[in-house]
Amino acid sequence: MAEANALPLVVLSEQFAKLPGIGMKSAQRLAYHVMSMSDTDAKAFMDAFSAARKKVHSCRVCQNFTDREICPICSSERRDKRTICVVESPKDVTAFERTKEYKGVYHVLHGLISPIDGISPDSIRIKELLARVNDADEIIMATNPTVEGEATAMYISKLLKPFGVKVTRLAFGLPIGGMLEYADEVTLYKALENRNEI
Amino acid sequence: MAEANALPLVVLSEQFAKLPGIGMKSAQRLAYHVMSMSDTDAKAFMDAFSAARKKVHSCRVCQNFTDREICPICSSERRDKRTICVVESPKDVTAFERTKEYKGVYHVLHGLISPIDGISPDSIRIKELLARVNDADEIIMATNPTVEGEATAMYISKLLKPFGVKVTRLAFGLPIGGMLEYADEVTLYKALENRNEI
Repeated sequence: MAEANALPLVVLSEQFAKLPGIGMKSAQRLAYHVMSMSDTDAKAFMDAFSAARKKVHSCRVCQNFTDREICPICSSERRDKRTICVVESPKDVTAFERTKEYKGVYHVLHGLISPIDGISPDSIRIKELLARVNDADEIIMATNPTVEGEATAMYISKLLKPFGVKVTRLAFGLPIGGMLEYADEVTLYKALENRNEI
Repeated sequence: MAEANALPLVVLSEQFAKLPGIGMKSAQRLAYHVMSMSDTDAKAFMDAFSAARKKVHSCRVCQNFTDREICPICSSERRDKRTICVVESPKDVTAFERTKEYKGVYHVLHGLISPIDGISPDSIRIKELLARVNDADEIIMATNPTVEGEATAMYISKLLKPFGVKVTRLAFGLPIGGMLEYADEVTLYKALENRNEI
């Protein structure tokens, strides 16, 4: 390969290829792009990378990423601290915040229990959630409707039972704007099973 | 947006989104991935980035990326220095090297003339090519068969005329393994026009 002309470029390509969703071809393209960046742009990228690594960590309360000790959601006066929405990742917090409807707080697990991938209950932030239970009235299990998401929701709700807290699960059914004919069987069955009187 | 929880993460996402082929959604995912990297992995990425920026530059002869003063192709005893293949970018050198058939050397333009994008003949490495002409017997114009690629090939071959050097262009026709019925009209016309006696 002609990139052997410049070993550091091969190394950089390999580093890009390790990132999720980036194949060897894109990684090469990115490495070449880095070479064509201005010094200012390259510095901006490097600075952003190291600043994120240095300054961002988990919120002491909800475990979401933040650059403060306690994140703005957990420290906001206007959020209902007695309702905790349990999600898999910080991305899910973003999704809920976009609805602009949820007024409670969050708890980010940073993963789902998955014995096949070696992720045990101890590898995710469950004990940090248990430490918050006594301050809560309701805990909403908002993990994804996948095998791991369901299993994690079930596992955690069993742990929460002795605390006598109300544990709820997100509703599953037809997506708004979706068409019946394109819904998969499981979704349609859930929509039927959880039907509401109007 | 909940990422406002951690401004450095927003900044890093924006930096990733500036890279070619990475949209805002992937950029966010990459920024979150950076947070989950081990210190070793993060350091390896940063080191690869700065090493590529610091150590890699253009070969003094062919302008391809290299970490030496003159790249291994230009300094190889086994390459025919009197045949120069002119390409748009270092990626194209890689492509030719994969054929394992080309024994000449290269000249990388680092772009194509494109007045609409503000790329004038002075913005690409044409004068560096002209400086090499007297040492060459043949110059192969191997830019892509696009409007800009054709225009650049034409522009450069006019500049080369006074030197009396032989200037050739890559052959265009049906790709090997391709099917007649799927070939576009222009390719098929080129294949017909450039037909060879068998």
